[in-house]
Amino acid sequence: MNQMTSETLMPDKAAGPGNSVSTEETHDLISSDKVDGTAVYSTDGEKLGHVDHLMIGKRSGQVKYAVMSFGGFLGLGESYHPIPWDALDYDTQRDGYVVAIDKAKLHDAPYYTGDSPPVFDANFGAGLYRYYGVFY
Amino acid sequence: MNQMTSETLMPDKAAGPGNSVSTEETHDLISSDKVDGTAVYSTDGEKLGHVDHLMIGKRSGQVKYAVMSFGGFLGLGESYHPIPWDALDYDTQRDGYVVAIDKAKLHDAPYYTGDSPPVFDANFGAGLYRYYGVFY
Repeated sequence: MNQMTSETLMPDKAAGPGNSVSTEETHDLISSDKVDGTAVYSTDGEKLGHVDHLMIGKRSGQVKYAVMSFGGFLGLGESYHPIPWDALDYDTQRDGYVVAIDKAKLHDAPYYTGDSPPVFDANFGAGLYRYYGVFY
Repeated sequence: MNQMTSETLMPDKAAGPGNSVSTEETHDLISSDKVDGTAVYSTDGEKLGHVDHLMIGKRSGQVKYAVMSFGGFLGLGESYHPIPWDALDYDTQRDGYVVAIDKAKLHDAPYYTGDSPPVFDANFGAGLYRYYGVFY
């Protein structure tokens, strides 16, 4: 077994150009155990809440929903808003996500509380994607 | 704000057929905070270790690496093996992943220990994908 060294990790690093690209890619990945807490903003830059967890396809490895927690937002206790992945844009400057719907519509979006998670099935997904106006 | 009900969650459930599809999709998703501990098997069915965390594209939402922990495997302490996502197959019966390389090659695969994580940059990725024989 070879423990990773700079040589085994970055076989082409000596080639020189491309380091900035490498840095970007590094910053473009996030660990599944660090995603909790990533900020979510409205389109006008207001911080709305944070990502609690992601729902990921076991086979595809594709994130399908980001489940957001809004905490005190709207005067509720702990509530979870599943957002279709395609309804989120990643903002590199803020290192957070932006929901491309207005606050009133987010206010009316489906949510659940900690003791009653939904069944994330096809009908659920289709309804949610329809609500957020993205293709299922 | 509408708390989710069976009606808002599954608007088309009453349609009847398709429930088995819905169930499959539910089982096909995993939460990012539950992925830690998912078993990883060799192609001959031996349990090798488990997923410690996933490295996910912040923008794409696509899992790029599963970082595995093998624990006592090979007599090492806590060690982490990043595996290209495309080198893993999901086994529905075992509800775990299968690494499509033989044990000797896995033995020689790049790894790191807890105190020296690699930089997950483009060169790192290219080298690792090459090692596992999958397209980067």
